[in-house]
Amino acid sequence: MIYLTRKEHFNAAHRLYNPKFTEQQNLGVFGKCANYNFHGHNFDLFVTVKGTPNPDTGFVMNAQTLSKLMKKEVVERLDHKNLNLDVPEFENKMVSTEIVVQQIWNWLETKINAHGCYLHCVKLYETENIYVEYFG
Amino acid sequence: MIYLTRKEHFNAAHRLYNPKFTEQQNLGVFGKCANYNFHGHNFDLFVTVKGTPNPDTGFVMNAQTLSKLMKKEVVERLDHKNLNLDVPEFENKMVSTEIVVQQIWNWLETKINAHGCYLHCVKLYETENIYVEYFG
Amino acid sequence: MIYLTRKEHFNAAHRLYNPKFTEQQNLGVFGKCANYNFHGHNFDLFVTVKGTPNPDTGFVMNAQTLSKLMKKEVVERLDHKNLNLDVPEFENKMVSTEIVVQQIWNWLETKINAHGCYLHCVKLYETENIYVEYFG
Amino acid sequence: MIYLTRKEHFNAAHRLYNPKFTEQQNLGVFGKCANYNFHGHNFDLFVTVKGTPNPDTGFVMNAQTLSKLMKKEVVERLDHKNLNLDVPEFENKMVSTEIVVQQIWNWLETKINAHGCYLHCVKLYETENIYVEYFG
Amino acid sequence: MIYLTRKEHFNAAHRLYNPKFTEQQNLGVFGKCANYNFHGHNFDLFVTVKGTPNPDTGFVMNAQTLSKLMKKEVVERLDHKNLNLDVPEFENKMVSTEIVVQQIWNWLETKINAHGCYLHCVKLYETENIYVEYFG
Amino acid sequence: MIYLTRKEHFNAAHRLYNPKFTEQQNLGVFGKCANYNFHGHNFDLFVTVKGTPNPDTGFVMNAQTLSKLMKKEVVERLDHKNLNLDVPEFENKMVSTEIVVQQIWNWLETKINAHGCYLHCVKLYETENIYVEYFG
Repeated sequence: MIYLTRKEHFNAAHRLYNPKFTEQQNLGVFGKCANYNFHGHNFDLFVTVKGTPNPDTGFVMNAQTLSKLMKKEVVERLDHKNLNLDVPEFENKMVSTEIVVQQIWNWLETKINAHGCYLHCVKLYETENIYVEYFG
Repeated sequence: MIYLTRKEHFNAAHRLYNPKFTEQQNLGVFGKCANYNFHGHNFDLFVTVKGTPNPDTGFVMNAQTLSKLMKKEVVERLDHKNLNLDVPEFENKMVSTEIVVQQIWNWLETKINAHGCYLHCVKLYETENIYVEYFG
Repeated sequence: MIYLTRKEHFNAAHRLYNPKFTEQQNLGVFGKCANYNFHGHNFDLFVTVKGTPNPDTGFVMNAQTLSKLMKKEVVERLDHKNLNLDVPEFENKMVSTEIVVQQIWNWLETKINAHGCYLHCVKLYETENIYVEYFG
Repeated sequence: MIYLTRKEHFNAAHRLYNPKFTEQQNLGVFGKCANYNFHGHNFDLFVTVKGTPNPDTGFVMNAQTLSKLMKKEVVERLDHKNLNLDVPEFENKMVSTEIVVQQIWNWLETKINAHGCYLHCVKLYETENIYVEYFG
Repeated sequence: MIYLTRKEHFNAAHRLYNPKFTEQQNLGVFGKCANYNFHGHNFDLFVTVKGTPNPDTGFVMNAQTLSKLMKKEVVERLDHKNLNLDVPEFENKMVSTEIVVQQIWNWLETKINAHGCYLHCVKLYETENIYVEYFG
Repeated sequence: MIYLTRKEHFNAAHRLYNPKFTEQQNLGVFGKCANYNFHGHNFDLFVTVKGTPNPDTGFVMNAQTLSKLMKKEVVERLDHKNLNLDVPEFENKMVSTEIVVQQIWNWLETKINAHGCYLHCVKLYETENIYVEYFG
């Protein structure tokens, strides 16, 4: 089993705010991330697939194909978007990085299986100091 | 003359959109950056000051003091903010990185002079692939 | 299960030297790291916690809370310190990165459990070319 | 069990091309990587070993020893080389990063066991956006 | 005057070898870089332009336009190429990074002037430890 | 004129403390950096030389030669050392990064001139957030 990881990135706005909380509770839990007018991040996305290299290509999966898949399934949906307002899958959800990685997994899993290998990990950097990983 | 540089960072949302342009013109010039609901970035800010080291401290300027000044004058104003909506100085302006560095220079210049050295450069990374510098 | 990682850093001096060894043996095993007057590093610390996101916040653990915990339990004890002389827990021990990560795990484990999630990994960079990981 | 990782790097040329494919197939599968005259990369190599720290040194394995081993067994064979033409082990093989990490594992495994610990992972960056991992 | 910098990258093979030198002299001067079968690098290219921001856009130059220009004029010519064999401009020249930055300047200068600003600097990283700058 | 930059690094301990100040003044000015038992850093050193490329080599200066010079004149003196106690040139001086870059300039300038080019800049990172530059 060999693991191949590809990095892509997207820039997006978001806000952490729970309408069930009071204004005071939102500030207490989310701090500056609750700002009504949104803030944003450069998100770095690392997707890891695993499998056995094809002897004719040496590839677990063609990294160029993986890049295109990540761009089509993830970057086109999230890049230069407002995660709270522009992405139907996040309607009525907290748009934390934890929730975003699970959604990215759902967008990618079957598409990657179709290439004869397995999705192993979705890793998303919100800043250079915070990242989240999901292994399905 | 010695040059001292300190890095701080802030996360913010913004939108590039000129109300004098048609919707079509805005899309043509600003592309995805014109998204009505905003997008965002992790901005990395590098401020360079220059001067002669004080023989009693070895410092051009105390890097801890420079850090506090950058946090008070810049980060508190811009971090987790919407540059178009939350910052009075950017009202009715294009909020490109070029415009932001000039404003940061204005916030910092006299405060740094008060410490016996000179502001040399404000450098701002919008992404790891794009940065802007201003030397006054 | 979702994994959340937060990075903090501290700067410290240390020395690798075993009093049971001769001077010659110390030099042979530890090389320049045995310097009597100490040397130092910028240590980058990555702490990973795991758990199920709280549906009201979207968080495995509030990254701001994790940051404060790392600062209180680790950074305050080790930042701008001499690991051999200033830290009681390292008295009479080799202060290798391997030993330091285990101590950091001990300082953090129960504090993180108190937030409803689990400590998964302590990863410590001594330089950009050497890092150590401990999973408990 | 503690995990120690050391980074080394090498610069090499290679080409992805399968002589069983037509020219058209090679271009379709490998794109620009099929260029007859080769292209190249700065490869960053991370080797992770695991074991129990020796109480007399605090080390799973002496990082200096690991560095020398990686230089002797890997860097001397691959640095400033053409992976297709200069390395006997890659003769008649696709020289993808997937194939290279397996070969590096084979060069290192028994040498690392001889130091009382285990090879855990060989991780190789082809570019900053693509890396491959092998765990044996 | 504001300075805008954009990063692009390309991967290429090259060889440092002067046919006027003996084999021994080539080895003495260029070391491993003289390998007959070539080696290669991931080159990171930073291009800096300078000018006055257009008040209607806030831009010295549209960073998207600069990116396209760098891709068309530089990346398409050099990416996944052999600098010695595939690039007519380098025929019968030493293909050191110093020579490459001057050629990149020549490809870009008039194209950038056509956008109402000036080319300020071409900076090229050969590895993370070596870079070369040219200011015209 | 072409500019060539080479990076090397060293790890060292130091302390910022002025014996003319009271204990209270030292704490007020230097904060945690005044710790009696020292702290330390991974210092990244960038040296830039400038000149005209030699047409026979394409080099302003052989980067391998520059690397060896930096190792001999700087790294051997400072790596795994205590800047306050182990380096005669820093005796009775404040060992701030500002003072260190000037000393590095003095060690290198004539040695670089001997290779037919000029020392342009010594840049030293104390942490990833603080660096100092000296241009002579």
